[in-house]
Amino acid sequence: MLENVRIVMVETSHPGNIGAAARAMKTMGLSDLRLVQPQSYPSVEATARASGAGDVLEAAQVCNSVDEALEGATLVIGTSARQRRIPWPCLTPRQLAAQLSHDLANAPQDTRIAVLFGREDRGLTNDELRRCNLHVSVPANPEYGVLNVASAVQLISYELRLALLGDDFELQESRSRREVMPLPEMFWDEPPATNEAVSGFLDHLEKVMAQSGFLNPQQPGQVMTRMRRLFMRARPDKMEMSILRGVLVALEKKMQRDEGR
Amino acid sequence: MLENVRIVMVETSHPGNIGAAARAMKTMGLSDLRLVQPQSYPSVEATARASGAGDVLEAAQVCNSVDEALEGATLVIGTSARQRRIPWPCLTPRQLAAQLSHDLANAPQDTRIAVLFGREDRGLTNDELRRCNLHVSVPANPEYGVLNVASAVQLISYELRLALLGDDFELQESRSRREVMPLPEMFWDEPPATNEAVSGFLDHLEKVMAQSGFLNPQQPGQVMTRMRRLFMRARPDKMEMSILRGVLVALEKKMQRDEGR
Repeated sequence: MLENVRIVMVETSHPGNIGAAARAMKTMGLSDLRLVQPQSYPSVEATARASGAGDVLEAAQVCNSVDEALEGATLVIGTSARQRRIPWPCLTPRQLAAQLSHDLANAPQDTRIAVLFGREDRGLTNDELRRCNLHVSVPANPEYGVLNVASAVQLISYELRLALLGDDFELQESRSRREVMPLPEMFWDEPPATNEAVSGFLDHLEKVMAQSGFLNPQQPGQVMTRMRRLFMRARPDKMEMSILRGVLVALEKKMQRDEGR
Repeated sequence: MLENVRIVMVETSHPGNIGAAARAMKTMGLSDLRLVQPQSYPSVEATARASGAGDVLEAAQVCNSVDEALEGATLVIGTSARQRRIPWPCLTPRQLAAQLSHDLANAPQDTRIAVLFGREDRGLTNDELRRCNLHVSVPANPEYGVLNVASAVQLISYELRLALLGDDFELQESRSRREVMPLPEMFWDEPPATNEAVSGFLDHLEKVMAQSGFLNPQQPGQVMTRMRRLFMRARPDKMEMSILRGVLVALEKKMQRDEGR
């Protein structure tokens, strides 16, 4: 269904942004890119920033007008950072994605969606925005809400991917069995330990494990990685770290005292 | 609450990405940026790409090591495009945002969150990833899932903003959405330990703690309750239990051998 979605960039000034948008699209599984009167294209900078998405960039269609870029579209979405004088139906990217996922699930063959992205300095014109069925606006810092155009392409493509394909990790990518590991609740009686405190404890634990003869420092294998993972995911609090440190100190003293006899 | 979140970029090669990340952060209301050994910084390119986020860029702290960048952090998140040999708890950005929003709502003063972003070409090292409590991975095209680092900063900052501040347009809806966020499911390489195994380990730990002299069996206080809570919430797997049992056995032998001299 992602193939029904087209990204249209209008009069982009910086070719780097075109390449970055192509890359953003490909990471989310989109491939239909149209460029309306790009200021400088093709360009070495666009190719560099596209990185592994050179195919999307090369297949991009350069258009003379927005009309040409919108050819065949059944639903046109305009991205906008601010509300215009006459307010349009305006969705967040998440609401838009939910809407499109609904449309596409019901009539995939008939739906051709185009999402318009405006110029770096002034976005889409009022005229261009009026040609859209819906507007989409990214919830942002009211003091500075101007996203880079390729970042906006990334965000909206991401929301579309999640709405259309779900956000599960690829099952087959994992060679291991699936287990459920719930995260700890954090209604807590003690403040969390700092990262330095946990690191210091893990170094200390390693030392005591070596002293005990359990850990061979020459052939440590994956033992400390596994211990690290256990304690990192448990997210110890300050009191727990202090108890465990106390135990390690007591064990060291006991082993030294006994050795010294 | 967004001020509790720090973005850490590790050994970034392209200064443009640093500027773009600063801009991405500011659009989402984040401002705490730390740069671990950036290849070329300060830089005209970073400043240009930061656009209106020059203040975030100028306030960025350059650090000599990841340790320095993580100073004071109570929760460290590593961004990663792939599963490593020993899988870590790994969330999607949306699951992460739900989790952090929960943590911050309950203990805002104590929580300092650092999100680590790796090098453009090879991400974070295994060693760096092992220092994280959680990993986060963006659901992406399995054929090409390599997001630009500034795009990744944008996406994760966006998810955090939405989870923490809600959606500008429909606050109530986004709040209720957050509450129904399902617990993340994890991929794990080892089956979980049984409850008996963890109980047996805790009894054994108590014995060794008493032998070491740390724990007074006549006045145990809450120490074992705290140890029990720590290990129960971590939900150890079989391999972890087997390592920890091995360590306890080695410690006992060492203490007995030394005493018997």
